[in-house]
Amino acid sequence: MIVMNDRLPGYAGQILRVDLDSHRCTKSRTRPEVAKKYLGGKGLGTYLLTSECVPLTNPLDPGSRFIIATGPATGTSLPTASRYGVFFKSPLTGIYAESYSGGKVAPHIRWAGYDAIIVQGRAAKPVYLLVDADRVELRRADHLWGRETYETEDVIKEECGSPEFEVACIGPAGERLVAFSCLVNDYWRCAGRSGAGAVMGSKNLKAIAVRGDRNNINIADEERLRALSRELVKRLRNDRLTAEVFPKFGTPVMVNINNLAGAFPTRYWHEAHYDEYEMINAERLREKILVRSKACWGCPIACGKYCEVKDGKYAGVKVEGPEYETIYAFGGLCQINSIEAIAKLNDFCDRQGIDTITAGNVVAFAIEAFERGKLRPEFKLSYSDPDSALRLLGIICRREGVGRLLAGGVRSASKAMNLEDLAIHVKGLEPPGYDPRALKGMALSYGTSTRGACHLRSSIYAAELGGSMNPLSTDTEKVRLVKEWEDKFTIMDSLILCRFARNAYDWNILAELTTLLTGIEYTDRMLASIAEDIVNLTRTFNVREGISRKDDYLPKRLMTEPIPSGPSRGALVEKSSFDQMLDEYYRLRRWDPDGRPIARAETKPIE
Amino acid sequence: MIVMNDRLPGYAGQILRVDLDSHRCTKSRTRPEVAKKYLGGKGLGTYLLTSECVPLTNPLDPGSRFIIATGPATGTSLPTASRYGVFFKSPLTGIYAESYSGGKVAPHIRWAGYDAIIVQGRAAKPVYLLVDADRVELRRADHLWGRETYETEDVIKEECGSPEFEVACIGPAGERLVAFSCLVNDYWRCAGRSGAGAVMGSKNLKAIAVRGDRNNINIADEERLRALSRELVKRLRNDRLTAEVFPKFGTPVMVNINNLAGAFPTRYWHEAHYDEYEMINAERLREKILVRSKACWGCPIACGKYCEVKDGKYAGVKVEGPEYETIYAFGGLCQINSIEAIAKLNDFCDRQGIDTITAGNVVAFAIEAFERGKLRPEFKLSYSDPDSALRLLGIICRREGVGRLLAGGVRSASKAMNLEDLAIHVKGLEPPGYDPRALKGMALSYGTSTRGACHLRSSIYAAELGGSMNPLSTDTEKVRLVKEWEDKFTIMDSLILCRFARNAYDWNILAELTTLLTGIEYTDRMLASIAEDIVNLTRTFNVREGISRKDDYLPKRLMTEPIPSGPSRGALVEKSSFDQMLDEYYRLRRWDPDGRPIARAETKPIE
Repeated sequence: MIVMNDRLPGYAGQILRVDLDSHRCTKSRTRPEVAKKYLGGKGLGTYLLTSECVPLTNPLDPGSRFIIATGPATGTSLPTASRYGVFFKSPLTGIYAESYSGGKVAPHIRWAGYDAIIVQGRAAKPVYLLVDADRVELRRADHLWGRETYETEDVIKEECGSPEFEVACIGPAGERLVAFSCLVNDYWRCAGRSGAGAVMGSKNLKAIAVRGDRNNINIADEERLRALSRELVKRLRNDRLTAEVFPKFGTPVMVNINNLAGAFPTRYWHEAHYDEYEMINAERLREKILVRSKACWGCPIACGKYCEVKDGKYAGVKVEGPEYETIYAFGGLCQINSIEAIAKLNDFCDRQGIDTITAGNVVAFAIEAFERGKLRPEFKLSYSDPDSALRLLGIICRREGVGRLLAGGVRSASKAMNLEDLAIHVKGLEPPGYDPRALKGMALSYGTSTRGACHLRSSIYAAELGGSMNPLSTDTEKVRLVKEWEDKFTIMDSLILCRFARNAYDWNILAELTTLLTGIEYTDRMLASIAEDIVNLTRTFNVREGISRKDDYLPKRLMTEPIPSGPSRGALVEKSSFDQMLDEYYRLRRWDPDGRPIARAETKPIE
Repeated sequence: MIVMNDRLPGYAGQILRVDLDSHRCTKSRTRPEVAKKYLGGKGLGTYLLTSECVPLTNPLDPGSRFIIATGPATGTSLPTASRYGVFFKSPLTGIYAESYSGGKVAPHIRWAGYDAIIVQGRAAKPVYLLVDADRVELRRADHLWGRETYETEDVIKEECGSPEFEVACIGPAGERLVAFSCLVNDYWRCAGRSGAGAVMGSKNLKAIAVRGDRNNINIADEERLRALSRELVKRLRNDRLTAEVFPKFGTPVMVNINNLAGAFPTRYWHEAHYDEYEMINAERLREKILVRSKACWGCPIACGKYCEVKDGKYAGVKVEGPEYETIYAFGGLCQINSIEAIAKLNDFCDRQGIDTITAGNVVAFAIEAFERGKLRPEFKLSYSDPDSALRLLGIICRREGVGRLLAGGVRSASKAMNLEDLAIHVKGLEPPGYDPRALKGMALSYGTSTRGACHLRSSIYAAELGGSMNPLSTDTEKVRLVKEWEDKFTIMDSLILCRFARNAYDWNILAELTTLLTGIEYTDRMLASIAEDIVNLTRTFNVREGISRKDDYLPKRLMTEPIPSGPSRGALVEKSSFDQMLDEYYRLRRWDPDGRPIARAETKPIE
């Protein structure tokens, strides 16, 4: 246990370093120019990761870093400032990874006085980290090892003696180093993608419990920030997306939209629309299982949908979700035509601590492999069968039998089974629920997103599906918009603000609020330049790991097999037009033709 | 619907008046000297009620007033500033009534811009009030009439289109004017005592839905208030009561304590200890049904205990609670020796919207009346029988059969059955779970509390059971302490802050924070004087309704029948020593020997 000196004034990149080898925790501060240049969140986390994590480090080696960061907006009056990010080298993809989670944890990290927590080393026995402002302890966690996430959260809160503490933890899958295991908080909020759980598991770190005081926050101009926050809340309440669509339907609204556009991946990417979509869409969820909407801390939108299964064989399941991505992964890819069964699968994944997107991809891929005779589990696998899916996920999380093979995700399993032509992933990350053949902006996003096939770096699908842009066009304007959104989201992920509030946070507002938060004068031009530098830094991390243009292409099937039927019949990611988009994208990013940033960003160590 | 002018700066006693006769809503402001003198909450609510509610008004007449108030602390950075108060003439007691509730509603009322809402008149058809900052609407509620509270809350949130809205509503019991019906929010938080539900029911007002923006609050010196709030949170986290006892056990911790002291009312006040207390105490609750602790908005204590019954005949019951008072009322008075059954009864009361304290007293009284042949329901009533208790409460809430007789509470039922000597109440309010024969300070508190037998005006039991004061002494020091606590709680109920945080809020801190909130310089002497004025105003209200010294005595049985057995065997409220306490109390309050305030407080109308 350490007792630390008084908190430092203002936003200053305050770091808590937790060395699990020596069990020593220390507090430090980044240089002011680093805080100024990288803001916080993604910027600061990427800077710290790139400067500290030696290239080609094994992600599960004690020498790897696991960085949890908040941003200068976190825990303030700004709406949707409830998220933390984790930054690490991914055991699933072997490259740069970032993942974010909402709920109530992030404000407490900030209120406790920390902009980032760097975890390094490996504890001899399982531990959890307790952060109670200046009191920082590493506590024994032997009794928590093997426990599911909900229970872990409950027990730790109980041990801390106050429900004020918020807990983020890994489940049994993270302990067993399943490559797509995640970090879970508030039961159902996950930093889901890229395997954060396994990195924590490799460090014998079961959880982080944190408590701060909401008044323990310094803001350069609090009064004006409050006035701006009021304006932003009004904006969110007057915008149809955040005032009606998300509160009413949440992300499952995308089921109908994507299905109508022929962009709803179905039957392990063989189809792009699902005839039984009405069994799993937002309306069905509302009718059958919705209890109420649920918001993260400080969020006026409340996109979360708390659900309970009332009857049938899955009666009693309680889960915030399923989100659209979970519905797509199990409902579309595995053709499970029951919202209750999907809720059950969602619950299972949250308890074990695995990412539902990769989980659904792995199950569907396994079904294909089974049908081809390449995979021989002790039970039959088939589409539309939630119980075999559950059973398969069970053996994956326990690393039993064929579960061991699948615990590394689709890419590693496909290599082992010589089914690489079948596998759908980019850079080792399985895609979310937007068929890039039907949405060409998403094709570019999947290809260039730093962590692999990702829908969160540009969310260009919103423009492509919203009617403002032809989904099939590959023109310069679309490439520019992909980059523009990536840049804006890079700033929002650095501050950290939720991308669902994007319509309220214009560039000039982002500049204004960053100024009000930090006391440093920012303009929208400055922020745009900072965003480019941060994106370049993420790419630099990957280039160091061997990534280049060759890795930015989509999987073979999506570039050779057209969508066979439905609204987007015949659509394909054509190499020539995709190459044009890549060229244009590299040009806008000032990368060389092989995808390497020309000007590399600064990565001097901070201490 | 009205659209109102901009919100007024600072704390200024901003009033929303809702006239249900004309369906007109108007905004006004109290005179600054009223806001200065009465602060808010209890002070302002009592002032408004006393100046507007004509003496001898029938509580269920359209002319009566129903006032919902927040205080200058509500929704600020101060810990535990999450409560609203309601002020009205009680249909149960016919005198002054106040009742408070935590949860998340109060901050939104304040953030929406209102320090008090005055409801008057009677809507022609059921309505609910929607307050969305300057947008105020009365909406049809026919479709909500008859619905339980949880469902009403859900449906209204749904209709409002955003889960940001918070809802306080009445249940079927309030609609049917059950005299001990209550106002419920956040499913399980109730302004429970004295019949607020029936007053709303009589006005055809089913609910209030409100939404504000947490940034929409003006504080005279926000920075210093934040610093003070940080200190207060630290204090609460370092105090055993608020850092350990409440978070771990909640109010049920009192079961063991009161039982050990022989102050746990049992078998309708015939005994003061319960042999089977271990079946219903905090340890049992933790072992059998506790899921997790739960806090109101902005509270670092989290005394709430969210419970689920996992098995047995009540499996599936989910309830925040049971609180100590509910356990005493059903467990002690009705000798129901099952925490699961008590949770079920708690759930029933919350759904129907009735006060659990009075409900338990009514059930136990009915059992006694049944055993004496004075009450003839269609089913057998007996102690230790949760199902007949449930059935009885069912017919009370529906006003069927003998339920009609009991729906007015113990006093009115005892009159009808000629069982007044058996009935336990003060001024018509049934007591909470502290036998005043064993706790003489509570005897005085029950006698002098403005709303009748009440444990919340002085909470002297904490000193009497905590070892700092002999429970049986009736000396001047104890009388002074009762008054001292009444005064302090009067300020805390005006600001409004939760009394569970009392150890942190010293008088000088109360003065400091009131100054920081309002910009008006207050001292602890000034606040003490204000407290006395407010208490006198509540007493003045009652004196106008006919209350005098004669009404301040305890029920006959408690003054003539000693406790028959157990740790407090032989204890009794003796008239002579009680008279001495009353005399001393009146002297300290500057009341005449008949209990009338000598200097009456100002009650000029505000408009």
